[in-house]
Amino acid sequence: MESQIIVTVDVVLLTLSEGALKTVLLRRDNEPYAGQPALPGGYIHPGEDRDALAAAGRVLRQKTGLVSPYLEQLFTFSGGVRDPRGWSVSVAYYALVHESLLGPGPRHHFELAPVDALPDLPFDHNRIAAQAAQRLRDKSGYSALPCHLLPPAFTLRELQQTYELVLGSSLDKSVFRRRLGELDFLEAVPDAVRQGKHRPAQLYRLKPQARLALFNKTM
Amino acid sequence: MESQIIVTVDVVLLTLSEGALKTVLLRRDNEPYAGQPALPGGYIHPGEDRDALAAAGRVLRQKTGLVSPYLEQLFTFSGGVRDPRGWSVSVAYYALVHESLLGPGPRHHFELAPVDALPDLPFDHNRIAAQAAQRLRDKSGYSALPCHLLPPAFTLRELQQTYELVLGSSLDKSVFRRRLGELDFLEAVPDAVRQGKHRPAQLYRLKPQARLALFNKTM
Repeated sequence: MESQIIVTVDVVLLTLSEGALKTVLLRRDNEPYAGQPALPGGYIHPGEDRDALAAAGRVLRQKTGLVSPYLEQLFTFSGGVRDPRGWSVSVAYYALVHESLLGPGPRHHFELAPVDALPDLPFDHNRIAAQAAQRLRDKSGYSALPCHLLPPAFTLRELQQTYELVLGSSLDKSVFRRRLGELDFLEAVPDAVRQGKHRPAQLYRLKPQARLALFNKTM
Repeated sequence: MESQIIVTVDVVLLTLSEGALKTVLLRRDNEPYAGQPALPGGYIHPGEDRDALAAAGRVLRQKTGLVSPYLEQLFTFSGGVRDPRGWSVSVAYYALVHESLLGPGPRHHFELAPVDALPDLPFDHNRIAAQAAQRLRDKSGYSALPCHLLPPAFTLRELQQTYELVLGSSLDKSVFRRRLGELDFLEAVPDAVRQGKHRPAQLYRLKPQARLALFNKTM
């Protein structure tokens, strides 16, 4: 048997807030780096966690109260220098949530920081967060992934704005709508419109199979 | 500190052989499952390996003699039931090699098995191999990945046959060539042609930046 390796999970919890893609940071309770903001994370508990995904769900639930439906494995970070406690492996996950799921009122227990302007984080958490943002951007061109940053029903205009925020560039409306038609993951919500300044806008949602299939596809 | 978790790496080494996508299996030296064919794998050695990728390279080198240039992280498999020794994490990698790199002559130390008709393997190695094959297929539609199953220079006809073998379906020649033009990862090898039954065929290779960029992109 080899000498002991530290095995943890970390979660990049992404949301759109104030027009920017942000990630949830928590102040660390324990050493190392106690008191500093960092990605939510913790040890895998072999007696309690079925697998690393379950550990990530538990950590998120315990530390933020969130029960996130879509935790996707991002990458496993490892090595002898990333954690001062010793040789470590962190199985990293990411999740996309609409800001309303983060709860109303003052957020004593966590903060939101823009993924493109994060403070210096402990361990290799800057690298993990950057890789999650890049993954989201890479997948946005051909998937329904950004829909999870919206509430369950949304207008096509809101959806285009979300893609634009994630991709960091503006999209041509007609090209965007043709692409949506090809991808075929949306359906109109019956009899649901949003009243705006001009004419009412139809609300859409993910088709049930798109909602389920989204994260089951191999990345 | 939590109770000890077993931390290993496993490698799915894919190649095209006799017209099928195959993976390398090794007979296990040690318990559990001693003597049975399995994916090449082993413990991470914290005193020796810089990170999990380095561990995968070392394991592959020590057990097959192969020094593979392109090891890509596939997924991390974990849990309390996948290894009879206890709660375990395996960081899995995959690599694509041309069959000639597997060496000439009799292969006493390993065997090749078709990924779509593998025997029952120990641990969750069937699942790991299936996920590697699926990843390759998912990425083949929009990447140069299958080129690594060919020798460094190849004809467009050989390339199309390779994509067809990987994808398991025939491709229209004109559509395939237009897609290659869009992806723009090939260059002609100057003054290199392959003599065939009919007219000589130009040889192509990956552009240097495509060769380097291939696996640096976030998956």
